[in-house]
Amino acid sequence: MSKSDFGLIGLAVMGQNLVLNVESRGYSVSVFNRTTSVTDEFVAAHSDKKIQGFASLADFVASIERPRKIMMLVKSKAGADPSERDAVDAVIESLVPLLEPGDLVIDGGNTYFIHTERRAKELEAKGFLYIGTGVSGGEEGARKGPSIMPGGSEQAWKMIQPIFEAISAKVNGDPCVTHIGKGGAGNYVKMVHNGIEYGDMQLICEAYQIFKTAGITTDEMAQIFDQWNQGELESYLIQITSKIFTIKDEITGQPLVEQILDRAGQKGTGRWTVQSAAENAVVISTINAAVEARILSSMRDQRLVAAPQFSGPEPKIDLPKDVLVQKVHDALYASKIISYAQGLDLIKKVGEAHGWDLKLGSIARIWRGGCIIRARFLNRITEAYERNSDLVNLMLDPFFKDILNKNQESWREIVSLGVLNGIPMPAFSASLGYYDSYRSARLPANLLQAQRDFFGAHTYERLDRPEGEFFHTEWPEVIG
Amino acid sequence: MSKSDFGLIGLAVMGQNLVLNVESRGYSVSVFNRTTSVTDEFVAAHSDKKIQGFASLADFVASIERPRKIMMLVKSKAGADPSERDAVDAVIESLVPLLEPGDLVIDGGNTYFIHTERRAKELEAKGFLYIGTGVSGGEEGARKGPSIMPGGSEQAWKMIQPIFEAISAKVNGDPCVTHIGKGGAGNYVKMVHNGIEYGDMQLICEAYQIFKTAGITTDEMAQIFDQWNQGELESYLIQITSKIFTIKDEITGQPLVEQILDRAGQKGTGRWTVQSAAENAVVISTINAAVEARILSSMRDQRLVAAPQFSGPEPKIDLPKDVLVQKVHDALYASKIISYAQGLDLIKKVGEAHGWDLKLGSIARIWRGGCIIRARFLNRITEAYERNSDLVNLMLDPFFKDILNKNQESWREIVSLGVLNGIPMPAFSASLGYYDSYRSARLPANLLQAQRDFFGAHTYERLDRPEGEFFHTEWPEVIG
Repeated sequence: MSKSDFGLIGLAVMGQNLVLNVESRGYSVSVFNRTTSVTDEFVAAHSDKKIQGFASLADFVASIERPRKIMMLVKSKAGADPSERDAVDAVIESLVPLLEPGDLVIDGGNTYFIHTERRAKELEAKGFLYIGTGVSGGEEGARKGPSIMPGGSEQAWKMIQPIFEAISAKVNGDPCVTHIGKGGAGNYVKMVHNGIEYGDMQLICEAYQIFKTAGITTDEMAQIFDQWNQGELESYLIQITSKIFTIKDEITGQPLVEQILDRAGQKGTGRWTVQSAAENAVVISTINAAVEARILSSMRDQRLVAAPQFSGPEPKIDLPKDVLVQKVHDALYASKIISYAQGLDLIKKVGEAHGWDLKLGSIARIWRGGCIIRARFLNRITEAYERNSDLVNLMLDPFFKDILNKNQESWREIVSLGVLNGIPMPAFSASLGYYDSYRSARLPANLLQAQRDFFGAHTYERLDRPEGEFFHTEWPEVIG
Repeated sequence: MSKSDFGLIGLAVMGQNLVLNVESRGYSVSVFNRTTSVTDEFVAAHSDKKIQGFASLADFVASIERPRKIMMLVKSKAGADPSERDAVDAVIESLVPLLEPGDLVIDGGNTYFIHTERRAKELEAKGFLYIGTGVSGGEEGARKGPSIMPGGSEQAWKMIQPIFEAISAKVNGDPCVTHIGKGGAGNYVKMVHNGIEYGDMQLICEAYQIFKTAGITTDEMAQIFDQWNQGELESYLIQITSKIFTIKDEITGQPLVEQILDRAGQKGTGRWTVQSAAENAVVISTINAAVEARILSSMRDQRLVAAPQFSGPEPKIDLPKDVLVQKVHDALYASKIISYAQGLDLIKKVGEAHGWDLKLGSIARIWRGGCIIRARFLNRITEAYERNSDLVNLMLDPFFKDILNKNQESWREIVSLGVLNGIPMPAFSASLGYYDSYRSARLPANLLQAQRDFFGAHTYERLDRPEGEFFHTEWPEVIG
């Protein structure tokens, strides 16, 4: 058989779908999986396609046209500790003796970016090329066209660009892939993308919770979300939520969603986003609240014990239904803007610190298709950065500023309604809190500075003196 | 001169005060500082005391009675990255060749606990003993009696116990020091203590902000906080806040606090607490909000640009003053309970993961005196763990449960008042959100699980089936 154009290691569902996608664009593909039976079954099921499977890694590598393009889809576990090693390192280690100079290795998993930078350095020193890339869109995206976020060198990008552009999602003909930046930039942006996805999902859950408390039925919610999907909130997550509400449970005949256990999993990327934000002193309170909400959901045993012991108000929402729906819509939209503003702020600050030279507008552009957070809204973000590529915060763009100003009243009403009715709305609240803090010319941190000077002689600055001039007060003694 | 009982390296204010404290309890002390002039000045200023200064580290070490007890107060910078090295490592490296088996080295700085565990291992392998200890109480605490939180081995603790008990704060004769646990337990507990301190300070700031918005004067606030300090909220931070409000600016004659710039600093410990909580999947949303509030305060340039561009309500608080004060009191108290419940939850979970065998009641006990968060309230926490040492969450203790149930209505009113008046109250809100989530038998994470199964075939569990049994639905196709 002739040599393959592309090689892929790791045939879980994502890997299989990505292979089928690449092959469908006219490329021949070699595949390898640690458990050989998976390879055999996959190749047998697609014997009509230009896909070759191998039981030996050496044969797999030898079957690929040079310079080789080999993508790994292997679960990475290594987190913020740079000395951690995981399955990706193991695969690389076994690949290295088989490669030849100029070969390109691509990690397509959710890898914490520092490990990509380390691996790239190691492989480049040996004459190979290396890319860590984000791939978003779930199983379906992998098969039909994902959003792809590659980092790595310009040279590596040029080598894989034709294939990535061919397999990526398209929006009006535009491929949903761009060279994000060097080093670990691709993984970093994908990680924050996932954090934003956490935020989007949590905001939808909070809207659902309010509706449910207000006595709106699941069938009505299917309609509400379907309608929302025709407007400003048009997005994949709103769309699938409306579909979810239509599905009835086969066993009980009741809405399926109500039979599902309220205990959510959380993967490394959400946690890593929070850790990275803390490390870089960036506030991503909405994403944070979403990660926390998943953790609290997972503490179901404790919640069941606590529920009968703690008091709360008897919920009573008496807004007319159409008014409530509109206000929740407005609150959700405003909260979503804040969540994206925070995520982009994190990407911007960390990108600057690493010299990645990121284009936030292009990043929003490639999120418009393929990925889980795809939304009409992302066009507006791209336009904002086209208007001003140095935009300090997304909120300050005229388009988004207007929406925030227009929606802030409804937003307050809905958050207040949650508070007074005992409905936890951590992400709506955190977003509004960020808005109100960000627009505060004066925050109460002056008192905090006085306290710190009181107990630790940390000194403070004054409103009427230049910043950087520090004062200390001899505070009165206290006893005890 | 005869040999000293104790040695201290690092003569910044904290170090100097700690030396004076040790010496005042009858111990002779040798001191060393990198800049020799500081040593000379300090020793000259205290020539009447049993304090010897040295220009050479070798002479300093030689001057101490064996087995030596040498404490370093050197700023540690190394964070979550275990491969980081900092000034503490440099000091240790220069000390090691001078030490003899059985000597004890103590790090009294705010060190990230993983570095203490690494250093302990290295030094113990050489026959030395090592302790990383928290020391809280600021300058004044160091001089008059801090709260001390030592980790390390039992043997090391026994060696330093007499001195630490002598210099620590006392509450009813009880020294505010206990052996927290082995390894990095002391540093970890001190780190979370600092996170809790962040939370306490932020909650006070939010109360102040509401009062200010309601038109309550600084003089009135001095009285309110003074009164609060007679009751349930009695604590060092409430007390110094009341003092702060009494101080007039020498230049303007106005309340000094109003002349102070509202831009707060944040040190490593707050950030590390957030990172560690994320890593261990523990929700510390109140502490998180406090760290975020400091970051937002530091973005003052952006806030000044944003303030005129974003709309908010015209604040209008028309509760009678005494009613408002009581409700804010109740909201602050409830929020504070949540903050401590979260911090103790983090200590408990990480302690279990590391096998530190922590006694939460004893930890609360040694926080009652000396340290910044000292408060009457801590007696109640100690009692809670005396009632039940396996308490899953502080909220579930009858004493605290009662307060939360009694205060929840006022708490909601105050948070809602903030939301509707555009006053950012991130820590009050986060606390209430935690309360409402924790007492929810049902959270909307069932929808989230449906979404995850829809786009990623992540599967879900069902309410009517045993946990651990996973289901997948063939969801309808969506286009676009």
